[in-house]
Amino acid sequence: MDNNQIGQSFWDKGNINIANNDEEHEEKMSRRIQKLNLHLNPQLPFCPNEETIHFLDCASRIRTIDVETKVLSEYMRGKHWDIQERVYEYFNSRPDLQTPLEISKDDHRELCMKQLVGVVREGGIRPFRYVVEDPAKYFAVVEAVGSVDMSLGIKMGVQYSLWGGSVLNLGTKKHRDKFFDGIDNVDYPGCFAMTELHHGSNVQGIQTIATFDPITDEFIINTPNDGAIKWWIGNAAVHGKFATVFAKLILPTHDTKGISDMGVHAFIVPIRDMKSHKTLPGVEIQDCGHKVGLNGVDNGALRFRSVRIPRDNLLNRFGDVSRDGKYTSSLPTINKRFAATLGELVGGRVGLAYSSVGVLKIAATIAIRYSLLRQQFGPPKQPEISILDYQSHQHKLMPMLASNYAFHFAALHLVEKYSEMKKSHDEELIGDVHTLSAGLKSYITSYTAKSLSICREACGGHGYAAVNRFGSLRNDHDIFQTFEGDNTVLLQQVAGYLLKQYQEKFKGGTLAVTWNYLRESMNTYLSQPNPVTTRWEGEDHLRNQNFQLDAFRYRTSRLLQSVAVRLRKHSKNLGSFGAWNRCLNHLLTLAESHIESVILAKFIDAVRSCPDPNSRAALKLVCDLYAMDRIWNDIGTYRNVDYVAPNKAKAIHKLTEYLCFQVKNIARELVDAFDLPDYVTRAPIGMQATEEAYSNYTQFVGF
Amino acid sequence: MDNNQIGQSFWDKGNINIANNDEEHEEKMSRRIQKLNLHLNPQLPFCPNEETIHFLDCASRIRTIDVETKVLSEYMRGKHWDIQERVYEYFNSRPDLQTPLEISKDDHRELCMKQLVGVVREGGIRPFRYVVEDPAKYFAVVEAVGSVDMSLGIKMGVQYSLWGGSVLNLGTKKHRDKFFDGIDNVDYPGCFAMTELHHGSNVQGIQTIATFDPITDEFIINTPNDGAIKWWIGNAAVHGKFATVFAKLILPTHDTKGISDMGVHAFIVPIRDMKSHKTLPGVEIQDCGHKVGLNGVDNGALRFRSVRIPRDNLLNRFGDVSRDGKYTSSLPTINKRFAATLGELVGGRVGLAYSSVGVLKIAATIAIRYSLLRQQFGPPKQPEISILDYQSHQHKLMPMLASNYAFHFAALHLVEKYSEMKKSHDEELIGDVHTLSAGLKSYITSYTAKSLSICREACGGHGYAAVNRFGSLRNDHDIFQTFEGDNTVLLQQVAGYLLKQYQEKFKGGTLAVTWNYLRESMNTYLSQPNPVTTRWEGEDHLRNQNFQLDAFRYRTSRLLQSVAVRLRKHSKNLGSFGAWNRCLNHLLTLAESHIESVILAKFIDAVRSCPDPNSRAALKLVCDLYAMDRIWNDIGTYRNVDYVAPNKAKAIHKLTEYLCFQVKNIARELVDAFDLPDYVTRAPIGMQATEEAYSNYTQFVGF
Repeated sequence: MDNNQIGQSFWDKGNINIANNDEEHEEKMSRRIQKLNLHLNPQLPFCPNEETIHFLDCASRIRTIDVETKVLSEYMRGKHWDIQERVYEYFNSRPDLQTPLEISKDDHRELCMKQLVGVVREGGIRPFRYVVEDPAKYFAVVEAVGSVDMSLGIKMGVQYSLWGGSVLNLGTKKHRDKFFDGIDNVDYPGCFAMTELHHGSNVQGIQTIATFDPITDEFIINTPNDGAIKWWIGNAAVHGKFATVFAKLILPTHDTKGISDMGVHAFIVPIRDMKSHKTLPGVEIQDCGHKVGLNGVDNGALRFRSVRIPRDNLLNRFGDVSRDGKYTSSLPTINKRFAATLGELVGGRVGLAYSSVGVLKIAATIAIRYSLLRQQFGPPKQPEISILDYQSHQHKLMPMLASNYAFHFAALHLVEKYSEMKKSHDEELIGDVHTLSAGLKSYITSYTAKSLSICREACGGHGYAAVNRFGSLRNDHDIFQTFEGDNTVLLQQVAGYLLKQYQEKFKGGTLAVTWNYLRESMNTYLSQPNPVTTRWEGEDHLRNQNFQLDAFRYRTSRLLQSVAVRLRKHSKNLGSFGAWNRCLNHLLTLAESHIESVILAKFIDAVRSCPDPNSRAALKLVCDLYAMDRIWNDIGTYRNVDYVAPNKAKAIHKLTEYLCFQVKNIARELVDAFDLPDYVTRAPIGMQATEEAYSNYTQFVGF
Repeated sequence: MDNNQIGQSFWDKGNINIANNDEEHEEKMSRRIQKLNLHLNPQLPFCPNEETIHFLDCASRIRTIDVETKVLSEYMRGKHWDIQERVYEYFNSRPDLQTPLEISKDDHRELCMKQLVGVVREGGIRPFRYVVEDPAKYFAVVEAVGSVDMSLGIKMGVQYSLWGGSVLNLGTKKHRDKFFDGIDNVDYPGCFAMTELHHGSNVQGIQTIATFDPITDEFIINTPNDGAIKWWIGNAAVHGKFATVFAKLILPTHDTKGISDMGVHAFIVPIRDMKSHKTLPGVEIQDCGHKVGLNGVDNGALRFRSVRIPRDNLLNRFGDVSRDGKYTSSLPTINKRFAATLGELVGGRVGLAYSSVGVLKIAATIAIRYSLLRQQFGPPKQPEISILDYQSHQHKLMPMLASNYAFHFAALHLVEKYSEMKKSHDEELIGDVHTLSAGLKSYITSYTAKSLSICREACGGHGYAAVNRFGSLRNDHDIFQTFEGDNTVLLQQVAGYLLKQYQEKFKGGTLAVTWNYLRESMNTYLSQPNPVTTRWEGEDHLRNQNFQLDAFRYRTSRLLQSVAVRLRKHSKNLGSFGAWNRCLNHLLTLAESHIESVILAKFIDAVRSCPDPNSRAALKLVCDLYAMDRIWNDIGTYRNVDYVAPNKAKAIHKLTEYLCFQVKNIARELVDAFDLPDYVTRAPIGMQATEEAYSNYTQFVGF
């Protein structure tokens, strides 16, 4: 029994006669009130302005927008598209460097190293220089090599962003002079040894110790127990020569305690002999073994037994030890030094957010192209229809495509802010970028992870063929949610920052740029929702960017205000830690809501800035879907606080389904505008010329 | 900056003074109305009965329930626990048959075949006999071997349920006599060749042709085009000797057309030589290659070029061809024959639902044990706390654990119904089991697939180690959502069946057993929600099974009634197919809602039947969490139709969080009651003796 049959057999008999009177009555009432209100209040807060009307003209009144892929894709491109194309072309010219579908862990690691050395020394791509000169260019390269093999993207990140970044950002000139070239040309492959078996998120809890020995002018690195073994360290199992080891700096003192713990510092520790590549004395390295994905990266575990390193190997930008064992720092407390140290590592998160958007583009492109090609069932005695013509399939893939566009612009914005921060070192901007990168990294990587599963499922059995990519994309991307800061922990940092801003507001202080909207919407929120607009359900109202932004921000403001009240209440009995934990789900929702607001705002900016009318109309349509889908996802909250009346909730749902349908009509052009060459997407079922997909696929298996 | 610091720094300053007056006022009002109503209506529909009070005593008024794992696990065990233990012990005694973490596709396929032959011939497990004698025993075996290696579970399913099942259920005595022993002892490995490159879900659209040749008394099997190549056929790439091939039966006629298409039938086609194992003439076999998971199963693609088979090879239970080319059948139409043919294959879905529950048990056990062990952060100057003490972590894992329990009882119920059906061949029961298996298969496998990702993420970096299982569990299980019926398609069958029942109701006909509740709740629904009870928010009310069931069923009834109205409306303009598609999301939600109602009802039965008071109290607690979590997940709908007032919605949310906390307190006992030996869960971080987990893990990597 298929669905046609069911639908038909049920309806052909057609003997049901219950009129939906309630709903119709409600709709009429609402329309009447809306009209009445237009008479009474000619200047309405959400009255569509000229610009909006223009958007609506393009986006909804004509049935399909005539998108010119080339024009749209030119607008979408980041400014470092050229270097991404160079990366793609390099690997396209070197099929021997392509990762095969089946490869052993050990071979994969060797291949990945060859890919890295190849693209740097032969391809002339110099990621370490871009890290210094133009971070945006660096992130573009990492995304591009990640499309070739995500292991390579991560291997590159370990070398240049983590190992290289720690030397650049936590060290001083002497370290740069000594290590820059070796890191740059991969003569010095290195590790970033922070995480321990027992401590990941809680970095201040790490237990590795670096004790200063004033007699020999050395630090002695020790792993005091098994829980302190450095774990998951990339480049450690096979290739690394050095490691930046995070350890508690212990200094001898002349008081009764005899020692003083100065908190977590970073040290350069050689781990393998430069010539023989043998593990150095006192260092024990084990292979962390197979992972769910990213098996091209050689993660290892490191134990140190009284390993001596010269005093100069302390990365001493934020704190130093003199020859006679005196500690000096420009920063007054352990916590400030720790914050400064970790603050320098924010680049990794920016890169992950950016690359995650790229992963989603590949998956969405493959899934949508296949869904346009694939036909199954259809009206009686008529040809089968494409599976993307099914409402359920549109529901799976179209909000995802809209999010992908939204994330694209948000990630570009983040990279821009980050680059600005690296130039200006502006205090406020540092806090802003820290929170924005934490929020976008966690929000985008979680969304992409879920989407990869949905894409596989949307492609049915053929999505399960390894050659069609979803398996490796998901397995490799999965850990993006965890490394460089667990997503749940990062979202709490966002919530914490919001609460701090909230506090500032009541103190009358200034708000950081990104958060400025809170002041305004907090005021709107504190005055109750307008009982008339809560019933408005017209398309021109729902698709007005002012309504959309207000809805997102109202939610954020309300969540912020209510969690603040709850925290205050609970902290009396539970203490601050207990209160925080009691409100944790609430805090995480708040953080997500805020990030969604930021993403929407950036998307709206991008729509507005688009010079080509057709592209702008297409982007506006996609942006509307993003907004409606998110509002509908949390319709319970909106209803609960009476921000929307039942009729409006229904209208939002209806419009979301309608926009899915509209976006579907230009879905092919929208994924083509991501501009991914076939040799990057690689999946036979996801080729640009969809009509060739099946024959590509049959050829692949040997027919 | 960690979360403690944020929470603390914010609250230590404590300078926010906005009272949450609105909410308090609302709560008070609601309590007053509730009290008033108690006076006015002493006989209330949701007044807790004695039994409920007893549950509440155990479950909520004391802080922790004293669960005896052994007693609970004895209650949980299916009746075929013994044979599952035999399977586990067999593989435990044969470490050479364990699948290593790294294995090539080809080696994996050979190993998987060895495992199958080993457990059957050496282990004395005889799945094919259980298929005939006691299906419940068969499903228990498939689940158990799936825990060893899911590829083996699927390989076994292909051999006995698909290939074997088609011979048993679609053939007649002559086929059984000829093939039973060879299938049973794996001398005749076989395939089930239904799916084609272009057609999966729409089986009636397949294009392979079987033309009767009256001269030679043979059928000629042909693949007319590339789209008709049989694809994803398990056992085809390497091991299969035979295939049950689904093809359109073409008979010569004496009219002007010359031929007649009799619809899809099944034929036994030898594909490899019994001795040499060479592919037979006219058969072309290609390897479908690497898959996302299940690489121990050798899926292949088959093309037939005029392959001749004797007339006897038609599986002729539902339709036969005589020597002179006349067609006979006890069933009058092509559609009826097709439905009967596919109806016999429902066992596969039952097996998948059942095995999926088993997969979730393994994952939940590992994730929860690790989350109890793992510590990170904590109150200032106090020891770190276990990550399962965090509200966010409870929110991730506890509703999942509750669902796992709920699914366990639902799957046992399904297996029971299926076994009953196989005995009685009762018409009504067949329809009931068909829909129940479609619904539970899709609902459970979708839920499990999502949960596997959540489990990995909940275990952070250590969840990413391949040895800790989440990767292979997810990759192998992923396709459960697609094969044996795509989940989205299956849910539509459920919706269609519900609509049929709805129609029956208005005709005054009888309703099938499972759907009986609809009559009652449809009446409740059609009378508006009680404006008083919509505000009730007391724990005794929310935890009353009558309220819970009513909420689930009200939602289903409302969705059913409203989609019926919408379908009727749209079918006027769009036709039945167009109307169905326009309401597709709505129909899918309806189907899920119904399945959730069935699951809850079965869980409540299981709680009630539990003889041990402590186990019963624990199960009641878990059942309440299942119910509250689901209601909260769709709170938007409940609010929108005013089934719950805002204060009640808030109370439901609060209670859900509280129940998560309560279930957390007995989480260890609850997973222990799944009774999975360490050599089945296998993940070092998920050992029963959690305190040994870290040392197991360090030993594993070589320390």
